[in-house]
Amino acid sequence: MPDIHSRRRAALRESLRDIDVDALLVVDLRNIRYLTGFTGSNAALLVHAADEPNAEGLTVFCTDGRYLIQSERQVPDLQRVIERRSAPALASLAGADAKNYRRTGYESHHVTVEDLDVLTGAAGDGVELVRAPGRVEKLREIKDDTEVEALRMACAAADRALAELIEHGGLRPGRTEREVARELENRMLDLGADSPSFESIVAAGPNSAIPHHRPTDAVLRTGDLVKLDFGALIDGYHSDMTRTLVLGEPADWQRELYELVAAAQAAGRAALRPGADVREVDAAARQVIEKAGHGDEFPHGLGHGVGLEIHEAPLLSKIGDGRLSAGMAVTVEPGVYLPGRGGVRIEDTLVVRDDSPELLTLTTKQLVVV
Amino acid sequence: MPDIHSRRRAALRESLRDIDVDALLVVDLRNIRYLTGFTGSNAALLVHAADEPNAEGLTVFCTDGRYLIQSERQVPDLQRVIERRSAPALASLAGADAKNYRRTGYESHHVTVEDLDVLTGAAGDGVELVRAPGRVEKLREIKDDTEVEALRMACAAADRALAELIEHGGLRPGRTEREVARELENRMLDLGADSPSFESIVAAGPNSAIPHHRPTDAVLRTGDLVKLDFGALIDGYHSDMTRTLVLGEPADWQRELYELVAAAQAAGRAALRPGADVREVDAAARQVIEKAGHGDEFPHGLGHGVGLEIHEAPLLSKIGDGRLSAGMAVTVEPGVYLPGRGGVRIEDTLVVRDDSPELLTLTTKQLVVV
Repeated sequence: MPDIHSRRRAALRESLRDIDVDALLVVDLRNIRYLTGFTGSNAALLVHAADEPNAEGLTVFCTDGRYLIQSERQVPDLQRVIERRSAPALASLAGADAKNYRRTGYESHHVTVEDLDVLTGAAGDGVELVRAPGRVEKLREIKDDTEVEALRMACAAADRALAELIEHGGLRPGRTEREVARELENRMLDLGADSPSFESIVAAGPNSAIPHHRPTDAVLRTGDLVKLDFGALIDGYHSDMTRTLVLGEPADWQRELYELVAAAQAAGRAALRPGADVREVDAAARQVIEKAGHGDEFPHGLGHGVGLEIHEAPLLSKIGDGRLSAGMAVTVEPGVYLPGRGGVRIEDTLVVRDDSPELLTLTTKQLVVV
Repeated sequence: MPDIHSRRRAALRESLRDIDVDALLVVDLRNIRYLTGFTGSNAALLVHAADEPNAEGLTVFCTDGRYLIQSERQVPDLQRVIERRSAPALASLAGADAKNYRRTGYESHHVTVEDLDVLTGAAGDGVELVRAPGRVEKLREIKDDTEVEALRMACAAADRALAELIEHGGLRPGRTEREVARELENRMLDLGADSPSFESIVAAGPNSAIPHHRPTDAVLRTGDLVKLDFGALIDGYHSDMTRTLVLGEPADWQRELYELVAAAQAAGRAALRPGADVREVDAAARQVIEKAGHGDEFPHGLGHGVGLEIHEAPLLSKIGDGRLSAGMAVTVEPGVYLPGRGGVRIEDTLVVRDDSPELLTLTTKQLVVV
């Protein structure tokens, strides 16, 4: 789809003019995928800020010999350089044409202190390398239709895998956390996922009180809270959902804990509006939990952006910064964890819209008893 | 195992004295896992270089609230700070005790240009942050017994998964590359792998000529070369192996291509000796292929170190640097790729030893016809 990538490069160019650079050297692979469609493990991209139509002609993609054929297919529309040390190769190419690349921005939030030395050496004296952090990530915060569609498919695969798991009796006393995680992941793969979007969390009983527990050989028992946090990766896009269920009839404390987290999660979702401060969104959910006296047992942020990365901007958290805009895809995932007893987290992925947010995670948030 | 981690920290301290720093701020998660056993997704570690026994007391680990319980279990032997922005938190802790941390090294090959600003601000004027790239990676190049044992298990799981795949008829005309990859990965998981160690490559027929092909719905056909490049992740350690097989009776060109690559691979393995220059090891295999007139069709390096990362130092390549030592774990993986026809790669993981290298990948390198 050269079209969508070319449109994204045009948007980037627009944003480069704001910071007065001739070009941007992009080194982050997710950013490169966003701008070109390339999916390999080594690449760099030099995007020139000149007006169309010259800009695309001056924009150069670099990868190594392993990806010769793949890059011909995925990036047919740009000049290509084949070279193992991809970013220095493009810096040196800028240096050789210094009048067109006098001020070249670089991704100073991805380039390490050591790498910068190498780039500076390669670019030579004629080129000034200028810090330009977060330019592509800023664009990526607002998802275009192609991206929302990929997220929708990824969320649907996760929803359906969980539904099938429950329907086929996959969640039952006697199974291990690991077996449940395997079945869930295999069902996502059967449903078209390229892979799980992160290491699945299946946490039963007291383990559910560990926010980021990895599945073990611990056995599910009647009466356990079972927390499942998982997602599917489709076309590079990550879904992210959490549901917490009870095996058998819930105890009163489990039901109360669940209702509390569900109320907080609903408050968080309701706060998703263009213009909302990310800290206020966090607070909207957090104060429900704090009022119930469990503030200390909600030790993480409310949510995060999701897309080509499982965690990306914006961060919905006390330590976040900025405001929501329509088209942002975020998770809303409050949790309360009672050490030694159990924990509940409920998480959806949603897209911020001008009216009410679009829910991509469609599994019920009623307490499911299996 | 506090013991092994404490020994590794002692070795790091020893190495820090060579560069005259009071401490090292470690931010890379693999390095932190190596030094502490912590497996979470956010941490920093400030290792003091003082003489024992003070050093361990001055060494501080930081992670965030999600990993409170996990870090108590995995890192019981160090001071712990719970804070979301882990590296700045430790920089600021060094700043508050500046007489003990006057010159503090940082991982300048992992810290970005932007992050360095944050660390410098957090550390304050009393602390000089000093570039200290690759200190932990240097130690990690030489595997200790615990590490070799993990690699051995990871290699064995991959070997056995391939054997089972073949034995149960999993490689047959009519199956898709994707189905074969799924079965291989599921077999590794059944054999105790925590996950595949990277995105498996299954490439049939002409696709085998793409060095890093991802599995597609392409169907395996009689007469195809089928290249499988995969590995298992166990206890954080990655195995890496490639085998290329033929479905049905091989054509002469396939047999010749296979024998050529096998001869190059044997030459590469034979060159693995303590003291050998990594470029000479690459050349030992490469010249076999060049003599046969296929030099241009071997477009990647001969191999790489493997351990907590799938690709780590040393790089066995024309662009590598340095010499082998006993205890290094490396891959040897020459390949020849004939566009449109097919390719062969053969890859083992081995440990460099004083006598001959220890082969961890035990699957036969005879041409297997299935």
